[in-house]
Amino acid sequence: MTKLLIDCDPGVDDAMAILFALNRRDAEVIGISVARGNCSAAQGTENALRLLKLAGREGEIPVCMGAAEPLYGLREDRYPTPFHGENGLGNIKIPASSQKAADEEVEDFLYRLALENEGEVVLIELGRMTNIARTVQKYPSFVKKIRRVVCMGGTVFAPGNSSPVAEANFYGDPEAIDLVMQQDWPLTVVGLDVTTAIHLYYDDLLKLAERCREDCKEEVKFLCDINVCYQEGNRRQNRMFGYFPLHDPLALIVALEPSIVNTRRMPARVECEGKLTRGMIVTDRRDHPFEGKNVEFCLEVNERKVLDILFDAFM
Amino acid sequence: MTKLLIDCDPGVDDAMAILFALNRRDAEVIGISVARGNCSAAQGTENALRLLKLAGREGEIPVCMGAAEPLYGLREDRYPTPFHGENGLGNIKIPASSQKAADEEVEDFLYRLALENEGEVVLIELGRMTNIARTVQKYPSFVKKIRRVVCMGGTVFAPGNSSPVAEANFYGDPEAIDLVMQQDWPLTVVGLDVTTAIHLYYDDLLKLAERCREDCKEEVKFLCDINVCYQEGNRRQNRMFGYFPLHDPLALIVALEPSIVNTRRMPARVECEGKLTRGMIVTDRRDHPFEGKNVEFCLEVNERKVLDILFDAFM
Amino acid sequence: MTKLLIDCDPGVDDAMAILFALNRRDAEVIGISVARGNCSAAQGTENALRLLKLAGREGEIPVCMGAAEPLYGLREDRYPTPFHGENGLGNIKIPASSQKAADEEVEDFLYRLALENEGEVVLIELGRMTNIARTVQKYPSFVKKIRRVVCMGGTVFAPGNSSPVAEANFYGDPEAIDLVMQQDWPLTVVGLDVTTAIHLYYDDLLKLAERCREDCKEEVKFLCDINVCYQEGNRRQNRMFGYFPLHDPLALIVALEPSIVNTRRMPARVECEGKLTRGMIVTDRRDHPFEGKNVEFCLEVNERKVLDILFDAFM
Amino acid sequence: MTKLLIDCDPGVDDAMAILFALNRRDAEVIGISVARGNCSAAQGTENALRLLKLAGREGEIPVCMGAAEPLYGLREDRYPTPFHGENGLGNIKIPASSQKAADEEVEDFLYRLALENEGEVVLIELGRMTNIARTVQKYPSFVKKIRRVVCMGGTVFAPGNSSPVAEANFYGDPEAIDLVMQQDWPLTVVGLDVTTAIHLYYDDLLKLAERCREDCKEEVKFLCDINVCYQEGNRRQNRMFGYFPLHDPLALIVALEPSIVNTRRMPARVECEGKLTRGMIVTDRRDHPFEGKNVEFCLEVNERKVLDILFDAFM
Repeated sequence: MTKLLIDCDPGVDDAMAILFALNRRDAEVIGISVARGNCSAAQGTENALRLLKLAGREGEIPVCMGAAEPLYGLREDRYPTPFHGENGLGNIKIPASSQKAADEEVEDFLYRLALENEGEVVLIELGRMTNIARTVQKYPSFVKKIRRVVCMGGTVFAPGNSSPVAEANFYGDPEAIDLVMQQDWPLTVVGLDVTTAIHLYYDDLLKLAERCREDCKEEVKFLCDINVCYQEGNRRQNRMFGYFPLHDPLALIVALEPSIVNTRRMPARVECEGKLTRGMIVTDRRDHPFEGKNVEFCLEVNERKVLDILFDAFM
Repeated sequence: MTKLLIDCDPGVDDAMAILFALNRRDAEVIGISVARGNCSAAQGTENALRLLKLAGREGEIPVCMGAAEPLYGLREDRYPTPFHGENGLGNIKIPASSQKAADEEVEDFLYRLALENEGEVVLIELGRMTNIARTVQKYPSFVKKIRRVVCMGGTVFAPGNSSPVAEANFYGDPEAIDLVMQQDWPLTVVGLDVTTAIHLYYDDLLKLAERCREDCKEEVKFLCDINVCYQEGNRRQNRMFGYFPLHDPLALIVALEPSIVNTRRMPARVECEGKLTRGMIVTDRRDHPFEGKNVEFCLEVNERKVLDILFDAFM
Repeated sequence: MTKLLIDCDPGVDDAMAILFALNRRDAEVIGISVARGNCSAAQGTENALRLLKLAGREGEIPVCMGAAEPLYGLREDRYPTPFHGENGLGNIKIPASSQKAADEEVEDFLYRLALENEGEVVLIELGRMTNIARTVQKYPSFVKKIRRVVCMGGTVFAPGNSSPVAEANFYGDPEAIDLVMQQDWPLTVVGLDVTTAIHLYYDDLLKLAERCREDCKEEVKFLCDINVCYQEGNRRQNRMFGYFPLHDPLALIVALEPSIVNTRRMPARVECEGKLTRGMIVTDRRDHPFEGKNVEFCLEVNERKVLDILFDAFM
Repeated sequence: MTKLLIDCDPGVDDAMAILFALNRRDAEVIGISVARGNCSAAQGTENALRLLKLAGREGEIPVCMGAAEPLYGLREDRYPTPFHGENGLGNIKIPASSQKAADEEVEDFLYRLALENEGEVVLIELGRMTNIARTVQKYPSFVKKIRRVVCMGGTVFAPGNSSPVAEANFYGDPEAIDLVMQQDWPLTVVGLDVTTAIHLYYDDLLKLAERCREDCKEEVKFLCDINVCYQEGNRRQNRMFGYFPLHDPLALIVALEPSIVNTRRMPARVECEGKLTRGMIVTDRRDHPFEGKNVEFCLEVNERKVLDILFDAFM
């Protein structure tokens, strides 16, 4: 049983990732925190609470609202509504939950859960690193309580999506991710090198809705609904016709079934300045590299198997 | 017969490239200009003149001293003496020439030669782009007079050598190369993706010295001598034992025998700011790329054949 | 904005290529000329005029009828009706246009448009090179007015389709293409090495018809209709079940988005004699190659992205 | 024990191949026939006789002089003296033999040996196919007596050496090889696709001369001597510095140790006309290929292992 602490910004693919996690019998989600990203922190927190209700887990898993803006304040920053809609969930409405968000600062929330499950927590990052960075700043010992960090974001060799060389989560708060990268914990980056290698066809999602477990029907129907918007965003901006990449769910799949990826550890930093390169991961593959923590990057992925794993959780 | 106009900073591998060009029967070197890089512009100019004398071409090919510093002035900038020695030629001394450098500004020199050979000149860049950029600034119509530009420098996918992501020629004057890249001429970049794929073993150079044409003996002996320093620099900084990469000569080989490389055209800019990324080539491989000229990058090379071509010029 | 001058023989895949070009916002089609190939020159010209009407561009783009037979006259030469039907458009009828073909010889037509857009024209060849060759013969200076030539045809390493080693456009008029190849302009060949690497599934075309832009509905419906015949021809002769290769549209995609292919420049000629090899591209990859212009051949292609680009133009 | 009947044109690499065969314990050379190729038929016959004497096999293996010119007469045809010297053996002289050439027509010689060893003979072709073609013409039943034919020559994907697309043995008598290819026997072609993939360094041959078996010393010394010329020819014409390809010996290695190559069977013909393509192998990889016998072509080779096998025969 893997204890997952999920920091996110739900978000269509965050929603898919969370529902996937909740349906895995070998995973226990011990808490969810939210930061600004695909939508505002407040909207994302509301979305997380409603997702838990949809999955029949209302009141069971604590949810905490976190950073309303990046570590060092807002730059020009628009929400990716073409992908995630106005409400982060592809403009699809689901019933409100009676569960309330935790009455705690996100740093205290994350640190407390880490303490209560010391050495057991796999920390999953599906959005920007703002909440994690703030927790590390407030509680440097947080780092040692965590078993492993798996984060969706960035790219090493593949093209970026927010800029030619930067992925959205890293582009949105590069200072946060650079700080997190330089901590002494095992950090695995699940970036565009592998997430864009997965092509999820919308038609396959429709087929899943017909054939999934009875108690998942509502959730999978919801995934189909929210991905109408997501698919259209990918068509417009990435010219993908009928399919889209699999970002956030892949981070969870890597956390639970690490053998589906090939990885390489490289010393890495994040460019926080630069006119064309802000938010870019700089790996140093020279013979005498710069000082930088070795970070584990996912470079290759078993594409077919990822889709099998994703669908299987709902069957 | 290909007319070559060579801008360079000699430099051990520049020297090898120039002697290679002078020994090709299908090439005519119509002029050499020099900028700061591997050594000072003055030292490099002196080196070029002496190289011509060594090759028995004293007084036949005009040499012009160009930019003493990068386009927008010097930043911290040390000469790469571990590779090229104090004098740029691996600390090897060769006799002075009676030929004097051209009494012209480098912009006038390059533009005049382009005019006199309109539509025929293949412009070879073996160092920083400072001289070319200044010529383009002074004479915008220079661009249309040139047949093709082939430049050694930069890297797309391979690690850099001046920084994790930047090659020395681009790192040394990124503003110049960015300006040159945005002009409307066919530009081929021969970067570390291909030059570091070539392994030139020092022992093979020694064998060449024994077996080369009689009238090349002195030149090849000189190449062996200057590469003692170059080899040692590569051993120390790049951990190459007994061999080294082939940078500048490859640009000439690509110019004369283009079929040895596979290339891809991509819209590209050069990062001129950035804490970690200054001098990096930013190619945009996204579906909706930024505005930028399509530049042709060499991505793969027939390694064995490159060495055959290099040696053959002296046999 | 890229100015395209299209020489073609419409033809099912020519029709797809032309409608693709007309729907690209970054391209301006400045003229269309037609030669014998997939159908007669007269039929092809009529098809081009009707295609423009279908696309709502009646009277806006000049169309010129060109060569009724190859450069040096007809050999045994059957129309490829199993692929393109009796009328070149898969036996599908569309309304006649009130626009008339230009009252000019094709050489005058092409040369005039090149002069009026000097240095800006990207010349696209989707059929045999007869019209271009005749223009070069009549106006040698035509070559210098053109920015770039991109031609669909030939094959370097892949099997041919008109013979074991020759593709149909080259097989149909080898003397014309050999003449064009030896001119001093940048020529990119988009041959079977890359076009047969693309698999366009008919079902994906049907999906496109459902989901495309409203103002494209009629055009995409037409593409579905004409490809019934094309698909059946490919099934019979190439044993492709449910899909077919993408020939002519790929030339336009390469012209507009060059980074989707990897290329190599090689000296090349076309065999105009030979019992088994007429129309074959002969590249010389020997160390001491024959005299021949360096031609740029597309050797590898990003397959998934090509289809994304194709579909996107109609969305 | 494999019975080898060798048709050849010695020739530096023929000599290496024959000495290799004579030193293999699992092979029995039952006869040698000679045709025009690397030198005249008369010179080649003399060379074969002297080689047998050098190997201590004088009088043991019959040698027959064959065709003095190609099947349908001479075209312009120069001996490759830059590779093989004036006498075919790199201008190296070895003692004459007391053995005389067989007093038979080559067709009778080959047919008789095939009859005497019916079903057992592996026919090795190291030169042009003239003698074999003439034997097939005179004795059509010859084909059925032979176990297998392995021939050095031609190229499928690699560049040619006599023309861009043709190898010397095929270029020298294309009608003969086309006739042989259309017979109903198992024919394996060992062409430039694999022979030029082998790089034999001259220095390794010198090392072999020091370390080989005592009774091979003279033979290996001889191989070193004749390859001085061969190496120089390869340097000049193929720009190979210090190494050369392994043509004829590879055919014998494939005959004796077939697992060192990957092969593909394809229907094939030889172009006998063509301005640029005479002597080219035309394989038909289309879905509905032409009529033509399936010929087995070697496409990939275990390079390191080939050299090991070659050297081992002399150790």
